[in-house]
Amino acid sequence: MHVLITGAAGFLGQRLTHALLASGDLDGRSLSRLTLVDQTAPEVPSGTGVEIRARAQDITAPGAWDTVLDERPDVIFHLAAVVSSAAEANLDLGMAVNFEATRTLLDGCRARKLSSTRLIMASSVAVYGGQLPDTLDDMTALTPQSSYGTQKAMCELLINDYSRRGLVDGRVLRLPTIVVRPGRPNAAASSFASSILREPLNGEAAVCPVPTDLELFVMSPGRVIEALMHGATVPADAFGDYRGLMLPGITVSVAEMLDTLRELGGEEALARVRHEPDARIEAIVASWPARFATRKAERLGFMGDQNLREIVEAFLADPARHG
Amino acid sequence: MHVLITGAAGFLGQRLTHALLASGDLDGRSLSRLTLVDQTAPEVPSGTGVEIRARAQDITAPGAWDTVLDERPDVIFHLAAVVSSAAEANLDLGMAVNFEATRTLLDGCRARKLSSTRLIMASSVAVYGGQLPDTLDDMTALTPQSSYGTQKAMCELLINDYSRRGLVDGRVLRLPTIVVRPGRPNAAASSFASSILREPLNGEAAVCPVPTDLELFVMSPGRVIEALMHGATVPADAFGDYRGLMLPGITVSVAEMLDTLRELGGEEALARVRHEPDARIEAIVASWPARFATRKAERLGFMGDQNLREIVEAFLADPARHG
Repeated sequence: MHVLITGAAGFLGQRLTHALLASGDLDGRSLSRLTLVDQTAPEVPSGTGVEIRARAQDITAPGAWDTVLDERPDVIFHLAAVVSSAAEANLDLGMAVNFEATRTLLDGCRARKLSSTRLIMASSVAVYGGQLPDTLDDMTALTPQSSYGTQKAMCELLINDYSRRGLVDGRVLRLPTIVVRPGRPNAAASSFASSILREPLNGEAAVCPVPTDLELFVMSPGRVIEALMHGATVPADAFGDYRGLMLPGITVSVAEMLDTLRELGGEEALARVRHEPDARIEAIVASWPARFATRKAERLGFMGDQNLREIVEAFLADPARHG
Repeated sequence: MHVLITGAAGFLGQRLTHALLASGDLDGRSLSRLTLVDQTAPEVPSGTGVEIRARAQDITAPGAWDTVLDERPDVIFHLAAVVSSAAEANLDLGMAVNFEATRTLLDGCRARKLSSTRLIMASSVAVYGGQLPDTLDDMTALTPQSSYGTQKAMCELLINDYSRRGLVDGRVLRLPTIVVRPGRPNAAASSFASSILREPLNGEAAVCPVPTDLELFVMSPGRVIEALMHGATVPADAFGDYRGLMLPGITVSVAEMLDTLRELGGEEALARVRHEPDARIEAIVASWPARFATRKAERLGFMGDQNLREIVEAFLADPARHG
C-alpha cells in the first residue's frame, strides 16, 4: 500500500508518519511506500523497510500534485493547511492553500481515475460558529465565522460531491482542538489551550488569554492520529449521504484544565499561568462550539479520550513533550 | 441607483428587470441605471427613462466582470447559473459557472472596494438532501446530493465570509420550487410541478410522473421576485451571523395541486392530466425537502404565498401565462 501525506512536516503529519511506520499496515494491507509532502522536505525516518520519499512542494503551484499523483497513492492523508490566524490575516493565502490546493488535489485524482483512492482530509471545529444550539450534532448547519472555517467547509462540500460522483473516495474528519500539543506556542488562536498545560508542566510561564469558564471541545494528539488512520479503514457506505463528521472530542472548561494542571503539576505549575485577557483571541475561540453529540463518529467506530486527566497524563509520558 | 442583474435573459432575470422598472426605485432610492448581463444580450425594454445597458458576456472568461464592476453597481442580483441537470451532466461547466464565476464576482467587488454593494444571490432548495429531519429550519446542515446544490452551498459560504470581512454586502436567498412557471415543459425534474397546472389551464394535456401524496415546497414567480427585491433592502445586521436563508415557500402535495386545478379549471382541466409514474423523476423530486420552518426569512420580512389557490389565480391573471 502506498500512502501519501500532505503537510507531513507538521505536527500531525510527523506523528502520523511514525504511527503508520510503527503499525506497518493500514486496513489490513502492508505499508510498502510512503510519500511525504510539505513546503520544506519532511524528515525521512531511516531503517523502516518502507520506501519513503520526501518532497518539498508548494502545493499552490501549477501542476503541484502531478508527480505524487502519477505514482497513484492508495490513501492520501491531506493535512496541509495554513492555520486559522494566517487564513484570517491573508484571505488569498488561505483560499490558495486551504481551498484551491484541495480542489486541484481532487481534480488530480479525478484526471487519473483514482476513484478508489481514499482521501482523508482534516477539517476543523471552526466550520461551526455564530449562534448555535447548546449541543451540536451531525445535522447542525456549518456557519463558520472565520475564513479558515469557511475554506474547510467548502472543501468538505467539494470532497462530498466528488465522492458522490465516484471520482475519489473522500472522508472528512472535523478535528476538535488538539490538547496537549507538544512544542512551542504558534500563531493559532487555539495555541493557548495547549500552552496553559504544556509550558507550566515543562517549568515555563504561560499566558491564558480567555476567561476560565470558556469551554473547548478537545482531543489528544494520540486519539487524533488513531482517528485519521481509522478514517482510512471505514467502508465508504458507512458515511451515508455525507462524507464528513465531527470526531468525538470531550468538552472541557479552561477552569477544568487549570484544575488538572494543579492536580498533576502542583500549585507551582498553576502559578506559572498568567491571566492576560485578549479580546481578539477570545472572540475567535468563543465562536467555536464546545458541546457535540458525535453519534455518527461513534457509530463508525471513532474513539475519543476518556477524560482530561488521561490526556494530560499521556502528554507527561510523551518523549516529545518538550517539542 | 445602479443595479446589475446577471442571468438577466432568464425567466427570473426578465421578471426582475420588469419589476424594477415598474417600481422605479429600490430601498427608497430612484433607479437611474440598469445593467443586464447574460450569455446572449438581454432584451432592453424601451421608454423607461432609466439608462439600461445589455451585455452579452461569458461570465467564466478571464476579466469577465471588469467592465460591469468598474461601473460600480450599488446592487447586484446574481441569478446567472447552469441548471441542476446541466451541472450534474458536466461537472466542469457547473463549477465554472455556478462557483468560480461567483468567486471572481466577489473578488472583483473586493478589488474595487465595493464593500457597500449589495449582492443578492439566488441559491436553491437543492443545497439540502439525503436523510433530513421532517421539518427543516435555519440550522439544518447543507448536505447536497447534487453538484448544483454543492456549488450553490459553496457560494453561500464564500459570500458569507466575504460579507463578514466587509468586502461586499452579500445576501443569499434559497428559492423554493417555482410554481407556476410560464412557458413550456423542460428537462428539469421539477418541470411537472408547473406543467400539471399550466398545461391543463391552457387547454393542453400534461403528464404527472409522481404519486399524488408527494409534497413540494413552492413559491410563485411573483413572490420570488418580491423576495429578491426585498433581499436588497434588509439591513445587513438583520442577517445575523449567516448571510443565507430559505425563503418562505408553502408545502403542497400533488393531490392539493390537482384539487386546485379542478376548482379553478373544472373537471375538464383535471381530465387533461395523465398519470404516468416515472421512477427516475420521483426519486429526484422526493429527495427535496418539502417542510421548512422559515423563521429567519419571516423575521426579516420576506413574504410567502398565502395558499396554492392564490398562486394559481396569479398564474391565470398573468399575461405571460402562455410563455
